[in-house]
Parts: sequence; C-alpha cells; structure tokens
Amino acid sequence: MNVSQQIETRAAASERNMADAIRFLAMDAVQKANSGHPGMPMGMADAVTVLFNRYIKIDPSLPDWPDRDRFVLSAGHGSMLLYAIHHLLGFADMPMAELSAFRQLGSKTAGHPEYGHALGIETTTGPLGQGIATAVGMAIAEQMMAARFASSLCNHFTYVVAGDGCLQEGISHEAIDLAGHLRLRKLIVLWDDNRISIDGSTELSTSMNQLARFRAAGWDAQSVDGHDPDAVAKAIERAHRTRKPSLIACRTRIGKGAASMEGSHKTHGAALGDKEIAATREKLAWPHPPFFVPPEIKSAWQRVAVRGRVAREAWEIRLDASRSKRRYEQTIARDLGGGVADLLAKFRVAHRKRGSKVATRQASQMTLEVVNGATGLTVGGSADLTGSNLTMTSQTQPIVPGNFKGRYLHYGIREHGMAAAMNGIALHGGFIPYGGTFLVFSDYARGAIRLSALMGLPVIYVLTHDSIGLGEDGPTHQPVEHLAMLRATPNLNVFRPADIIETAECWEIALGEKKTPSVLALSRQALPMLRQTDGDENLSARGAYVLKEARGPRDVTLLATGSEVEIAVVAAERLQAEEGIEAAVVSMPCWEKFEAQGAAYQRQVLGDAPRIAVEAAGRLGWDRWMGPDGAFVGMLGFGASAPAGDLYRHFGITADHIVAEALNLVGRDFAGSPLMAAVTGPQAGKDLARSSKEA
Amino acid sequence: MNVSQQIETRAAASERNMADAIRFLAMDAVQKANSGHPGMPMGMADAVTVLFNRYIKIDPSLPDWPDRDRFVLSAGHGSMLLYAIHHLLGFADMPMAELSAFRQLGSKTAGHPEYGHALGIETTTGPLGQGIATAVGMAIAEQMMAARFASSLCNHFTYVVAGDGCLQEGISHEAIDLAGHLRLRKLIVLWDDNRISIDGSTELSTSMNQLARFRAAGWDAQSVDGHDPDAVAKAIERAHRTRKPSLIACRTRIGKGAASMEGSHKTHGAALGDKEIAATREKLAWPHPPFFVPPEIKSAWQRVAVRGRVAREAWEIRLDASRSKRRYEQTIARDLGGGVADLLAKFRVAHRKRGSKVATRQASQMTLEVVNGATGLTVGGSADLTGSNLTMTSQTQPIVPGNFKGRYLHYGIREHGMAAAMNGIALHGGFIPYGGTFLVFSDYARGAIRLSALMGLPVIYVLTHDSIGLGEDGPTHQPVEHLAMLRATPNLNVFRPADIIETAECWEIALGEKKTPSVLALSRQALPMLRQTDGDENLSARGAYVLKEARGPRDVTLLATGSEVEIAVVAAERLQAEEGIEAAVVSMPCWEKFEAQGAAYQRQVLGDAPRIAVEAAGRLGWDRWMGPDGAFVGMLGFGASAPAGDLYRHFGITADHIVAEALNLVGRDFAGSPLMAAVTGPQAGKDLARSSKEA
Repeated sequence: MNVSQQIETRAAASERNMADAIRFLAMDAVQKANSGHPGMPMGMADAVTVLFNRYIKIDPSLPDWPDRDRFVLSAGHGSMLLYAIHHLLGFADMPMAELSAFRQLGSKTAGHPEYGHALGIETTTGPLGQGIATAVGMAIAEQMMAARFASSLCNHFTYVVAGDGCLQEGISHEAIDLAGHLRLRKLIVLWDDNRISIDGSTELSTSMNQLARFRAAGWDAQSVDGHDPDAVAKAIERAHRTRKPSLIACRTRIGKGAASMEGSHKTHGAALGDKEIAATREKLAWPHPPFFVPPEIKSAWQRVAVRGRVAREAWEIRLDASRSKRRYEQTIARDLGGGVADLLAKFRVAHRKRGSKVATRQASQMTLEVVNGATGLTVGGSADLTGSNLTMTSQTQPIVPGNFKGRYLHYGIREHGMAAAMNGIALHGGFIPYGGTFLVFSDYARGAIRLSALMGLPVIYVLTHDSIGLGEDGPTHQPVEHLAMLRATPNLNVFRPADIIETAECWEIALGEKKTPSVLALSRQALPMLRQTDGDENLSARGAYVLKEARGPRDVTLLATGSEVEIAVVAAERLQAEEGIEAAVVSMPCWEKFEAQGAAYQRQVLGDAPRIAVEAAGRLGWDRWMGPDGAFVGMLGFGASAPAGDLYRHFGITADHIVAEALNLVGRDFAGSPLMAAVTGPQAGKDLARSSKEA
Repeated sequence: MNVSQQIETRAAASERNMADAIRFLAMDAVQKANSGHPGMPMGMADAVTVLFNRYIKIDPSLPDWPDRDRFVLSAGHGSMLLYAIHHLLGFADMPMAELSAFRQLGSKTAGHPEYGHALGIETTTGPLGQGIATAVGMAIAEQMMAARFASSLCNHFTYVVAGDGCLQEGISHEAIDLAGHLRLRKLIVLWDDNRISIDGSTELSTSMNQLARFRAAGWDAQSVDGHDPDAVAKAIERAHRTRKPSLIACRTRIGKGAASMEGSHKTHGAALGDKEIAATREKLAWPHPPFFVPPEIKSAWQRVAVRGRVAREAWEIRLDASRSKRRYEQTIARDLGGGVADLLAKFRVAHRKRGSKVATRQASQMTLEVVNGATGLTVGGSADLTGSNLTMTSQTQPIVPGNFKGRYLHYGIREHGMAAAMNGIALHGGFIPYGGTFLVFSDYARGAIRLSALMGLPVIYVLTHDSIGLGEDGPTHQPVEHLAMLRATPNLNVFRPADIIETAECWEIALGEKKTPSVLALSRQALPMLRQTDGDENLSARGAYVLKEARGPRDVTLLATGSEVEIAVVAAERLQAEEGIEAAVVSMPCWEKFEAQGAAYQRQVLGDAPRIAVEAAGRLGWDRWMGPDGAFVGMLGFGASAPAGDLYRHFGITADHIVAEALNLVGRDFAGSPLMAAVTGPQAGKDLARSSKEA
C-alpha cells in the first residue's frame, strides 16, 4: 500500500482506541453523576473521532482563533462527547477533575454545553434543532468574511453533529431550506442516524426519508456506516468537495460498545450501571480504571491539537503579512468606532429641532441609514417583511446564493430560523446582526431569542407592528402578552421607544451592548416627536425618565411606553387645563435599564403621587411600577380587527380614560386596590376579549 | 361526449364565472377597506371554486354538522376568499353588508379568519403554518372517529389551502412529517404555488423542491395548472383515491385576472386601486357594480349548498337508524358525565388520608389513570417525553399508522406540531386532547398555544419539569420566564399545583373548561401532601386559598405555588416556633381563577400583613400580589446545572431565606420598595444569571 494508505490505516488503527476513550469517559462521568446521556457519545464516538483526528482545525491553546473550524454539538444532551474530546485535546479548563464533576454545581461540565461556560464551546445547545440552525448562521458569517478577506485569512468549515430530534424539530426545516438556498458549501452535518429517540424507535413517530428531504432542499446527502472510519472519512472528503451544504447520515447503534444495552433507548438518558460498565470494559478490552486514559491514546489526541496549533501559527504569519490586517482585526473585534455615536447624537438634535413625526419603525430605518453608513459591521434582514419592518437601507445589498458581499438577508418566512441564524452570525464574530418580523411573531422565534439572552449575544430584534396600532390584521397579529414575555426573559433589553428621538437613543444603546441582546418594539403608526428638552444626552439610557414634569407638586404620575406616551401627554395637558390636576408623564422605554438605576433615581422618577400605567398591552408586570393604589389603562384581553383609531377607542386606551382614572385616583382613598384588580385584571380582559371577538 | 363529460363541461363553463365572483368580491372589499390581501383570493379562485363546486360537503344551514368536510384556509390573509364563498353559499351571518364592512370594527369579516367569530370558520389562521398543522389534528380526529363509528356516520375529508409562507414555516415540517407517518389519507393540501412572497419572488429565499420534500415525508404529491379546472379536478380525485395524505401544487398567478398587476407581489397585501379594478372589470367582461353578484352565478353557488344539505339530511337518517346514535352524540358533545368528578373527589379524599408524597407529574399520571378509566374522550400524547411527562396510562394504547383505535399519540420531537394538532383535534370535536413536554419547551409551541387561548379550545398542556427542580439538565431546560409568559396570555388557565391533592383538583377544573385551554405546570421532584383540611371541596377552584392560617393575627403572609409551597410551610412553622412570628401560607395554584374571585375573598386570602412571594421562577407579575412592601424569593436570572437541592440552596429559594425576609419585613418600615426593586429586580438577576453561568 502507498504511504497515504499506510498513514490512513495507522490512523484508523488508533482511532478505535481514541473513540473508546470517549466511550468510557462518557460512561464513567454519567455513572458518577448518576445523570446524563451516554448513548449518543458512545454511538458517535467513531465518526467524531475521525472528524477530529483527520480533519478538524482548532487550537486548544487559543480556542477563539477566528479562522478555526466550528464544531457544533446540536444534540447537546451528548455533552460528554464534547467534554471528553476537550479533555483529550488538552483544553486548559477541562482536566479530568472536571469530567468527574460532570453536572455538579460550579463544574465546567454542565448538563448541556453552555457557551461561555467552558472554553471552546461554540454555542449553547440542548433545545433540539438550535445547534443546526445556529450553525447555518456561522456558515453564513464565514462566507461573508470570505467575501471580504482573502481565503488565506478566512477559510474554515462548520461541522454539526445532529440527532433525530434536531431533524424532527420544525426549526431544522427553516435552517436547511435557507442553507440549501444560499449554497453554504462549508456547512457539514453529521447526523447520528441511530433510529432511536426517547420514547423508543423513531418508527413510533416518523417515516421521513431524510436523505431525500435534504436533497429536496438543495443539499448533498450521503449515508455511511458510522462505525466504519474510512467510510466516514471518504464521506467528509466528498462533503469538502461539493458546492452544496452536506448531510452525512452516520448509521450508528446508540450506546455502541455497551455489553448488553448497545442499540437500546435505555442508553439514551441514564447511567448504564456499574455492572453493565464493568462488562463493557471486558467486551472492549479496556482494562483501565474510571477517569483514566492511557498515555499513548492521549498522545494520539494530542496530535490533533498540535496540527491545530501549527495551522493557527501559519495563519498568524499570513495575517501579519496581510495588508488587510487592521481591517480584519477591527471586524473581528466588532469595533464600531466612535463615529456612530457622534452621528446619532447629531441625528437626534436635528430631528428634535425638526419635530419629525414618523412611525418608530420608520424612525428605526432612518437611524439605520445613519448606522449602516458609518459601519460595515451591521448585517440586516427580515423574515419576509422587509417593507413592513423597514430593515433595509441604501447600504444593505442583499446576500444571494454565490455572492456574500452584501449585508442583507432575505431570511424567508422563517422567524425561528432567522433568530437562530443571527445567534450564529454573532457567535462566529465579525458582524452585528439585526433582523425584523412583527412583534407578535416573536412567538415563533422564542426558542432562539431565549438562547440569545442565555448566551449573552449582541443580537438585535427589530419587532414592528407592536400593538393594536397595527389595526385591521386583527388579534392574530396584535401582540398583547409579548412585551411581558420578553421582559420576563433574563438578560434581554426590551426597548419600546415613544418617538424618533428615543428610537435613535435605543438603537445606540443596543449597538453598544456586548453581552445582552435587544428587542426594539416599534410602531406601525406615526408618532409625534415628544422630547421636551434640548441637548444630546441619551435619556433612554436610564430606562425611564420624566418626559414632562408637573408644574407644581404632582397630583398623579402617568407611566407609559412607546405609542401610548403621546396619549399620556395629551391626558396630562387636559388634566392640567381642564381639571387643574398636576400630572407628570414618565416615559419608560426600557424597564431593564430603569431597574439597573439606583433607588434614589427610581424614587425621583416614579414620585409619591398615585400612578397610572398606560400601555397597549397586558397588565402583567406593571403593578411593580404603578403600585397597589395605581390604575392600569391598557389591554385586558386579545385585540380585534378594525382601523387602529377605532381599536384604541374600543379598548379604552384614550386620554379620556386616563383623565377618568386620574380623577378617580385623586378623589378616592387608596383601599380599593383589590377592587381595581377585579375590575381591570386579566380575567376581566379575557371576558372582554371574548366579547370583542364576538362583537 | 357522454353525460358526465357534459356535466363536467357545463360545470367548468360556469366555474369561470363563479371564480370571477370571488375575485371581484375580494377586490371590491379590500378596495373599500383600503386594507387586505386580494392577490391570493384572485389567484386561488379557480382551484377553490372547483373544490367547492364539485366536491366539498358542507351545509351552510348547519355549519357545525359533525360529518362535514373541513376546509382550512391556512393562508389566512386571503380571508376574503373564505368570506366571499360563505356569502355565495348563503351562510346566514354573511350577507353582502358584511363583505362591504370588511376589516371594520364589529363586522363578521375580520382581517383574518377567526374561529367563533363567523359561522363555518373551522379554525383561526393568519400566523403562517398554523392552518396546515391544525388540519393534521382534524384529520387525526376524523380517523379516530372513523375507527370508533361506522363509515356511514364518519367519512369526510380535510382540505387545506396553504401558501408559500405556510410551507416555509418550521411548523409545516412537523405537521407533514407526522401526517405522512400516520398516513392521513383524507388530508388534502392545495398549495397556492404562485412563487411570490411579500419581499418579492420566492427565489429570494428558497430553492426547495416542495414536491420532493412532501414525497420524502410519505405524501402523494402532484403539480397542476391551478387555473385549469379539469386538471385541478383530476388531481383532487387522485388525492381522494390515494392511501397517503396529498399535496396538490396549484401553479397560479397571484392576482390572477388583474388588468396590469397580475403576477405581481403588489397584489399580495394592498388594494389594487379603483383604476386597476375598473380595467379588470373590462378585461374580465364583468359589468356588474361592486358588491353585486348576478343571480345565475349565485344560484350556481347555491347548488353547492343544496348538495351539502341533501348529504347532511341523508346522514341524519343514517344516524337515527344507527345503534351507535347515543354514543356518537355523547362523543361529539364531549360529555364527560358526572362519573369523573365523583371519582376524582374520592381520589383526593383517599390520598389526603394516605398523605401520598409524589412528584406532581406522577400525581398527574395517577389522576389520568382515573380520568382515562372513566371516559374514552381523552386523547393523550407527548412530544417524545412520555416517560418524563408521565402522560400515558394503562388505558391509552398508541395510535399507529393504519390503526386509530388507540388513544395515545407519539407526537415525536415536535412541540409546535403537537400543540397545533391538539387544537385541530379539539376543533374537529369528539375528543379532549392533552399532550406533554417540558415547561421550558412551551417556547417551541408558543404560536399554537396562543391560538388555543384565542380560539378558546379545551386543550390541556401537561408541562412537566417546571423549574430548577429538574436539576442537572441546566439552564436550557430550566424554565424561568415561562410561567409569566403563559400567565400573560389571555384566556389561558395556568395551574401550578403544590401536591397530589391540588393536582387532581386542577385536572378536574381543566377537564371542566369548555372555552379555555389549560396549562398544568408539574414538578419533576417528589412533593409531600400538604392539604390541611378534610372534605372534598375543590379549593384550587378559587385559584388561591389559605392553606395554613396563622394561629393569631398574621405578622406575615407567604404566597407560593407548586413545589415552593412546601418550602413556605416549613418557613412558616419555623417562624412560629423559633421567632414567634405568625405566618399564614397561601397556595396560589391558579392566578386566573383567583383574579376571577370577588374583592372580598381576595382581601381575605391576601390579608393585611406584609407578604412574601415564593416561586422558583422570575418575579414578573408577582408584585401585584406581594405589594410594594413585600418581598420576593425566587429566580433572579437563568438557572444552572447541578442536583436540584444544590440549586435551591445556590439560588436561595429556601426556608432560611424566607425566614430572613420575614424578619426583615416585620422589623422595618415600608418605605423601601424601590430598594427592594434594586436588590431583587430582574436586573440583579441578570447579573446573577451571568455569574451563576460562569460559576
């Protein structure tokens, strides 16, 4: 045989042992924790060993080297596969002690891979389908970098290990359709085709021909014996050559190697038990104690790390020699420079003077026109609502199959896939993704929005048509509970600006966040410029501020966000003029930022007078700000189909109603809180929702 | 030509005019509203006219006749297609006046079809993909009925009109995979294959070969000229014959017939304008004024209604003659009888005596064992977590392809598809669906859960592993914001029972709801029986109640739900014994039910003493109950991966913490509300979330 065959044979020979090392580390760690999933790491150990041993390009000594291959374990429950490999490759934070502390408080080895929690974890997985959909974003970002820099600086693959669950979840459809359309040729998915899910055989719930399905989406698809190293290698090499994204179905047996349980769904999510593990040591001729890997096997894995370090050092030499070095490093650092903030400050001052009255979705587009002109880092897109979300600007040419020089993605009618792809773009580095849909369809993207927050990614959601103000499309399109849903999500900034000034301020804050995603809830309808004061201080940065102070001591304080601030201002003026009641108006564009302020500032803004909260959404969460003696003017149930003005009147979100509540508050003692609850509680809303629907 | 050919030709001749009637009603209604979507009704008018004129079996005089064909307009923005047909068929509530009030407040013609808002609307559509996924549930229910009753009583088709958006959304993948697997041969989808979406050509975002995709999922798939009536008819007849679900791709031109705009995405979502409509009247030789249909065309449509009435009357004769009549009517009425409630009351009394300590997910299974034994109406299932959700009982044999006698659905790893299918099962009638997944994965099902609430369907979500109590799986699997998300949703009962007694009570309430869906949030971990009082009154029915009253006047009131009630009880006992502080414990299994109580009862339960809210979830919403002088003991950010006990201590959800807060409250003046906010607000949580992740 020739040399390369010899090398391959030698590699293959040791690969069996390299894979068994993964198997026993997975079995032993799950056994010690008495919790976890050994079946998948054991089943995929052979294929993944081939991938790492022969191909993958990472440097454990510099895990965030930008041109590394990305490895995404979409089947996140198989986390011990990743941790075992990270230990064997010598990641600094993954000594054997961490493997033996699997799933324990404070260990690096969390139940599912958590981005930022241990080195080299490319993305958080566990919710099925997220990994493959996030990898699509990584592969998009790779192609965008490759379109902007020489292949000597940007040239890496995105590998995914996915399970049956990942491919059954709906998000996988959105992801593979988009990937096939964009011809993401450097995206390679290894499917753990073990035909087992938690309930038992996959035959219980699916008859899908996955290869035909992926081919229909424009993918190259192959099927191989996942326990035959050379067959896996040949498939990966074909995947490297094809011009399409690749699916490699690895036919495997779950729990491969287990003495008596191999192939059983019992190996999926529970420890195998000491007896089974002992018998498996016999069967696989693995005489070593738990949490021990013989030096010759470790050194085989070390070769992978060495190959990666050599590649990384060669890349650094190329980078140092490159004329694009500075631009490359600014891109990777997502360095906006000071220019954007200065331009936005000028923008705010100009429109304050001009008193521009526009919908906040349009104010957002005007802001983006400034931002996208000042930086090339932003990448826009929409889930097929470009003309409604107003996410496209003069600088954002569309990205099309074969040409990634553009800065705009037509994500298609795929809110969930869009959100996950934005996570992947942010994780890859080099770009700041923003994407639009209607606020109500944040429902569809919830799974990925939550991961933006959990991972702490600089992703910006442009969610327009943010209330009944969208009018005729009716309750299916009118968000009511969505602001509460998003505000309840930790580490997510929810901005609801009231006018063009706040919109520009909120964009500036969102662009400045490094570890917190943002939602911009924007109006369909035009809103007047409300800012009362000159100067370029970003008042939205404090989360809430007194937009309009009472002339004397406050009789009542009106709290509002977004399109309802205008209504509150009108009500305050009428209270003063018609009733002699002094009302202050507080605009609250971002609760999270206000919560981060000191108690003194909070007290000063909220004041001691009774408060009325005004928002064209549900009450949940508002009691914190309006207090027990306050009142709520907003939605008590679902919306209805009618012109926006009619709906605001129908649901009583009007200056008249605010004035009436203010008179009521000022005139009465404050014992009536439970009464208010009974009158304005969500339950009442539910009845009204029914009646408004029957109306 | 032979007679049938003559009839077909005659039908085809008038079908052109019948379709044009739809076109002009759609154009004129959208024009008058200056809002809506004419393009789809115009494009699909020909195909849908063939469907109704030659095949569909409905009786407008009895729209809810159980054996009618179901027609689902999945592309709900084309609502004028449905309203026009309902008018032409003579639905009692759809006179011409309603068409001319399209999208106006109080009209029957809402922007999107709203179930329950006008007669004959089978399901609410608009959020794309929901219709086709809901129709899968309808087709499942039809097969289940057919397995239980003679084909003379149950024998109808489920027809769907879907657009490109419906097929791009991820939920469509879950739906067609499940439908193909179950071989739902009476499900027929007409795809409006017009290759246009809102942003423009579908080539902007997809290269999917839909026919190959559906075939991969086990469907029969055909493509026809959607403007060739006989071709459409032949395709429908083939779909009637095949043993698989059917996709018929109808190649159409959006806005078909429009003088100059036919084929343009400009016809999708806006009025065409008076000039274009006038020119179209010329082009199509339609001399009639707006909102007028000539008698001969109306009578052609009337023939469809007559055919339906005749079929319905023949069916009623068959029903009257059937020995199964009584059983059939009880099934359709979803008549549980009194038996279930009596058995559950006995069940509660027995376990109150026995003091059974079980996880509430297990208590739920024990309850279901009683329920499923007493009625055949319940249909269980799980999104591949049967052994974790404990949704299967001894009576629920699985439904498998070709055999629908069972009562359990292996929905696969498809939370969204499961929720939509349950909506469809409930809409079809005859069954009460319940289905399980983890509470955190309600994220994936949000779109369909919202429609359960908006439509007011008796669907029950069994959402287990409802807090950090699930332990090692970590933050991706630990719900924090989900109770708030669900509580914020109008017309949705969110139950979080504290023990086996409350679990049985909440199941009894959920099963009694006719127009409100229910969520049962259930623990993974075992919980002691806490009920202090004998008797079989369902205390959970009031939403919240005093589980343990203070011995004297209350010094503090502890509010808690689910697994934290046990902790509150321990804290109350320690406060009394160690500190001489009188603490009452209020269990709040259902906020919505508590909000529906009178103010007096609410005041009595909440009391006047300062309150501490205890829940292993986020704070949002709790301020309403704990008040500004209260304290919150719960999650301040995301969870972490560790054994449950460690996590409760790590996040301070302990009796110690409650005791400390109580001492603090009793000892201090009540000015500190903003301070509390700063200390325990979500923002603090976000920091803690990060640190707990880095921990």
